[in-house]
Amino acid sequence: MFKNVKTIVVLLLLSSIGVNAQNKVPVYLDDKKPISERVEDALARMTTDEKIAMIHAQSKFSSPGVPRLGIPENWMTDGPHGIRTEVKWDEWDQAGWTNDSCIAFPALTALSATWNREMSSLYGKSIGEEARYRNKNVLLGPGVNIYRTPLNGRNFEYMGEDPFLTSKMVVPYIKGVQANGVAACVKHFALNNQETKRNSVNVIVDDRALYEIYLPAFKAAVQEGDAWAIMGAYNKYKGQQCCHNEYLLNDILRGEWGFKGVVVSDWGGVSDTKQSIFNGLDMEFGSWTNGLSWGTSNAYDNYFLAKPYSEMIRKGEVGTKELDEKVRRILRLAFLTTMDRNRPFGSFGTQEHAEAGRKIAEEGIVLLQNKNNILPINLSKTKKIAVIGENAIKMMTVGGGSSSLKARYEITPLEGLKKRIGNQAEIVYARGYVGDPTSNYNGVIAKVSLEDKRSPAELTAEALKVAKDADVVLFIGGTNKSDLQDAEGFDRKELGLSYGQDQLINELVKVNKNIVFVNISGNAVAMPWVKEVPGIVQGWFLGTEAGNALAAILVGDVNPSGKLSFTFPVKLADNGAHALGEFPGGDDVTYKESIFVGYRWADKQKAKPLFSFGHGLSYTTFEYGKVTADKKQMSAGDKITFSVKVKNTGSREGSEVVQLYISDLKSSLPRPIKELKGFEKIALKAGEEKTVTFTVDKTALSFFDDKKHDWVAEPGAFEAIVGASSTDIKSKVSFSLQ
Amino acid sequence: MFKNVKTIVVLLLLSSIGVNAQNKVPVYLDDKKPISERVEDALARMTTDEKIAMIHAQSKFSSPGVPRLGIPENWMTDGPHGIRTEVKWDEWDQAGWTNDSCIAFPALTALSATWNREMSSLYGKSIGEEARYRNKNVLLGPGVNIYRTPLNGRNFEYMGEDPFLTSKMVVPYIKGVQANGVAACVKHFALNNQETKRNSVNVIVDDRALYEIYLPAFKAAVQEGDAWAIMGAYNKYKGQQCCHNEYLLNDILRGEWGFKGVVVSDWGGVSDTKQSIFNGLDMEFGSWTNGLSWGTSNAYDNYFLAKPYSEMIRKGEVGTKELDEKVRRILRLAFLTTMDRNRPFGSFGTQEHAEAGRKIAEEGIVLLQNKNNILPINLSKTKKIAVIGENAIKMMTVGGGSSSLKARYEITPLEGLKKRIGNQAEIVYARGYVGDPTSNYNGVIAKVSLEDKRSPAELTAEALKVAKDADVVLFIGGTNKSDLQDAEGFDRKELGLSYGQDQLINELVKVNKNIVFVNISGNAVAMPWVKEVPGIVQGWFLGTEAGNALAAILVGDVNPSGKLSFTFPVKLADNGAHALGEFPGGDDVTYKESIFVGYRWADKQKAKPLFSFGHGLSYTTFEYGKVTADKKQMSAGDKITFSVKVKNTGSREGSEVVQLYISDLKSSLPRPIKELKGFEKIALKAGEEKTVTFTVDKTALSFFDDKKHDWVAEPGAFEAIVGASSTDIKSKVSFSLQ
Repeated sequence: MFKNVKTIVVLLLLSSIGVNAQNKVPVYLDDKKPISERVEDALARMTTDEKIAMIHAQSKFSSPGVPRLGIPENWMTDGPHGIRTEVKWDEWDQAGWTNDSCIAFPALTALSATWNREMSSLYGKSIGEEARYRNKNVLLGPGVNIYRTPLNGRNFEYMGEDPFLTSKMVVPYIKGVQANGVAACVKHFALNNQETKRNSVNVIVDDRALYEIYLPAFKAAVQEGDAWAIMGAYNKYKGQQCCHNEYLLNDILRGEWGFKGVVVSDWGGVSDTKQSIFNGLDMEFGSWTNGLSWGTSNAYDNYFLAKPYSEMIRKGEVGTKELDEKVRRILRLAFLTTMDRNRPFGSFGTQEHAEAGRKIAEEGIVLLQNKNNILPINLSKTKKIAVIGENAIKMMTVGGGSSSLKARYEITPLEGLKKRIGNQAEIVYARGYVGDPTSNYNGVIAKVSLEDKRSPAELTAEALKVAKDADVVLFIGGTNKSDLQDAEGFDRKELGLSYGQDQLINELVKVNKNIVFVNISGNAVAMPWVKEVPGIVQGWFLGTEAGNALAAILVGDVNPSGKLSFTFPVKLADNGAHALGEFPGGDDVTYKESIFVGYRWADKQKAKPLFSFGHGLSYTTFEYGKVTADKKQMSAGDKITFSVKVKNTGSREGSEVVQLYISDLKSSLPRPIKELKGFEKIALKAGEEKTVTFTVDKTALSFFDDKKHDWVAEPGAFEAIVGASSTDIKSKVSFSLQ
Repeated sequence: MFKNVKTIVVLLLLSSIGVNAQNKVPVYLDDKKPISERVEDALARMTTDEKIAMIHAQSKFSSPGVPRLGIPENWMTDGPHGIRTEVKWDEWDQAGWTNDSCIAFPALTALSATWNREMSSLYGKSIGEEARYRNKNVLLGPGVNIYRTPLNGRNFEYMGEDPFLTSKMVVPYIKGVQANGVAACVKHFALNNQETKRNSVNVIVDDRALYEIYLPAFKAAVQEGDAWAIMGAYNKYKGQQCCHNEYLLNDILRGEWGFKGVVVSDWGGVSDTKQSIFNGLDMEFGSWTNGLSWGTSNAYDNYFLAKPYSEMIRKGEVGTKELDEKVRRILRLAFLTTMDRNRPFGSFGTQEHAEAGRKIAEEGIVLLQNKNNILPINLSKTKKIAVIGENAIKMMTVGGGSSSLKARYEITPLEGLKKRIGNQAEIVYARGYVGDPTSNYNGVIAKVSLEDKRSPAELTAEALKVAKDADVVLFIGGTNKSDLQDAEGFDRKELGLSYGQDQLINELVKVNKNIVFVNISGNAVAMPWVKEVPGIVQGWFLGTEAGNALAAILVGDVNPSGKLSFTFPVKLADNGAHALGEFPGGDDVTYKESIFVGYRWADKQKAKPLFSFGHGLSYTTFEYGKVTADKKQMSAGDKITFSVKVKNTGSREGSEVVQLYISDLKSSLPRPIKELKGFEKIALKAGEEKTVTFTVDKTALSFFDDKKHDWVAEPGAFEAIVGASSTDIKSKVSFSLQ
């Protein structure tokens, strides 16, 4: 019931004069006014209760607008690979809607493996359209946490190990999403590099690694991508939850970077009212609140930024300045999204989006090894293809945690192959091994594959029988989206493949040497049999069109052009975190490897990877010329341009990702042997040659000096290194900074 | 999966050039183009499957848009007195949302009793804002079926017995709703005047009654209100379901009236595919389909306008012309609602809306009898007030069928009185009788009052004890929203009050003569004790602010100004349908009373009503001057103006509804003694006098000549009659039509 009736009677009399009598649009509803003015006008009209309501959830994925003022609610959606199905108001269970079967896009590891900014733009545009049509105004993605260890269960949601690659790929994604009037909510800020103890672990990291490795993608998202929202991480930094972390949110995000958007908590990532008030958090979601059981709706009133906050205001323990700041940011979000009258209407579950997903998948698949040109499968010479492995038939759009989707459809690899090959060759299938039949996350159990009661021996026998007389064996295995595989909430237990796949492959190579291993995963896996298996393809989680994309690569309709966005170490000990015993840590985890993550560690340790960062083969061949520089010396304000000719020396069209690394030959602080500072993906017809140029300024030469707390480019000698991967170096050129 | 991949690859290549590359807005998305062009452009892009999807439901209250083209879904909401709570996708149960507690507005009988077009406009504006904020683009209301019998369980949703009053009141409601970019869906078209056998009964009515009584409000809704949608009725007319009725939809609605909007079925009102194709239906909802249980989601594919239709098209049994027409209309609906970029954002559950509801309630309450000026209660002379009756404490926003609401709050009469009176007088309460504790509709059971185990004798004894020494007794009774009372799906069993209220009142008047009966109902009730009870108030179902509005009237803060929009007969036999034994009928119901509905029947039969149509008292008194005409004779193209002075002769401000009736003194076909053709509600200060003028043309003199199938104004003598009710005639003036 309303308390202040008198003033409203007056308002009513004014408004009852007639529907059309009040033609004067209030400032906050006036599209022609700048957003900052509209924000102030709306804020001035709001009560404290309305403000408090706005800064915390009302349901699993929504938060209130201002119903009195016509400011719409915020509806969030996972993210980041497709629009999550509608769930019940206050439960994780699906609500049973039938209009919410989305297009599942490839996981972000696959996107990063395209090394193609246009694919990122297409991805963002497409998923943004899907979100918009479903009336979601915040997409909980993209994820840009750095790949620190191959055991992180959530790596598949991110874009690999390199801050430069991730920074360049995240920006077009964000712009694509936000062109739809849907906010991208970049996650998880920051240092959320493992799932083990993710809610409590305190990350200890030096400032150099923080600024050089873990923050650049977020900074690019904010400063170049203009992301309207960012999500705090579950873990702690300097002993404080990242969702209300003074250092990360106040000092760096808002202070150093000037972020104007909203900070959204991860679901359940808030644990302290006072810190939430003062340390930059704007919207609290998913809290397990104060002893009330999760799922009782009035728990929302007990959120840290709900009654506990309003009580503190009432008692005068805190002022309302911070509250107003939070609401200002949320109002800005509304004006940029739900209240932007000019935003498009989106589209959903469309063929166009499916094809976009397929194109991204095809560009992201990485040909890791191709001895004797076993691939592409020459259908004119192939009578029988043995497909072996559970991942040939397993749904990968379901499971894995919050990114699990109800896809409109999902083409499995086996379906894709059968559809493509038709009766051009016989395809025989054997499952070979059985993984987990269900995925379980937040108590919601999803069936992801059929059960199979046969013993490992029976499954192996069938596989061997099928493989024996085949012209080629496609072993389609890897991880999956079950707990302890590639899934949120858990880390993997080992680098090796599960479910006895290694043993099975060892048996298979004994009966048939023509074998291709397709690794469906979001992580690196160990391949002890690598020398016995001529063909190896990194297949990722590819979404709705997975099987079609994979088939197109395997039979050669599409020439592979993906490159790894993270290192495949031979063994865990070849990874810095593991070599130093700093994974998964205890209550603390110390990033002792510092800046030496991924290829930076491999370079330093001279540990030859199983497959290197940036590695990826093609069905054609490329010849690199010698890289040249347009000057020998550059000054601090200068730019320098490097050029290299690349020629397609094979017989078919193909694309190559040309990579530029910079090496600081001498520096006052330790630096990586080299760091990625440029990449271009170029398409070349057979015989065609193009010149690729990279222009950089001193930022490409800089490191973060933790004493000065600033980026420093030290004068001296540098090398520009051009490679087809981080280890396949084609040529170098020296230059110096004055 | 998609079939036609090749063409889409091409589209994709075009679209992947970049997010901003395609600046050319397609016609259907171009706001500057006329809607008709946009409709044709969108239609031309659609597949047959997309068209079929659009013409039937996908869930209880939604239907698909075109996800591929960004044309949003349609979300409907009951209606007509508030925005229904969110229900589950395919069940009637509430979905458990917490953001959907609406403002409950007074039922439409109360609105019609205001006789104030501005109240109708305020109502439409307010409920339209609520619908808009909740992202509903079609409001399933208003209801304008004519009050043929006081037993119709759904009369409370309509606007009374008179086609002229209903026609004038419905138009501002529609305009108010639609100003929000929300379609009003006027219901139930047509002849849905009873709930008994509502799904099967065939209404037999002559054309005169059809055109003069039952259709005018729909015609006004379409032609003056520009309603964007209309809902078909459950019943049959000429043996055909009204939802796909050739005569009503094709011939009259679209043919004679030129309706351009969508025809929506009532929920479950469709029973034939071919008729639905050809007889003007556009959108099918709520069907119990083809043996599939109601509630299984794939039942939607079996809707009459789903697969059965597409199969007929596929087999060539029907063409696609009708399909295109339906889709054109639905596209037009989208452009007027969801795709109107300029529509406002709405507001929800606001104090402003509650106050609007209260104002409407206060203007709609009717003071029926006020012997010895028992009302208003003079608090300075009153020590003890006895409140008796269950309706003083019963929720009326819950129950009654599809109009049932989850109101943000509801002030009961007892709460309203206590709040208003405070400690100015003692209020003692006795329940007196016990009605049904629950409401049950579509299997959803709602608790509407506490159970009470006491016997009738105990309840009576308590009531008498409480009443005995009170200064005034307020008996707050009537009907309620339970089955067989005022509720959808059932008709009432009798005119009399249920639950032993009459006996209780008879006992009460023996112990205390100072008694006021407040009839909370949406229907007329019998009052055998009318002479013993000095005060009688018609209290309606008043929504959220019910108790506050009622208290304001009872203590005199607000001077009553409502007038009955239907006749209270003394007994059922005083109503035409009942007198002629034509209610509820069997498989057929024949409207033998023809045009003689309500006061038209009472006038003809000289049956003095208990309370007349148009009746309503005030706490002040009004003196009417003699009505004059500006001419004696008018020709067919002329207008004629009648004037009457009305003076407030009492001591306080008040409003009076001045009514103009026209009487055709001689006609070739039978006509009612008189018919309402004008009304004005005027506010007069104490002592103030105003002149009320009514200007009419020949339409006010016309009747529907069923032989000519046209409206005819026959030359001859007429009388203009001014009254304070249909029986409280103040003066007359003669004139003639040449």
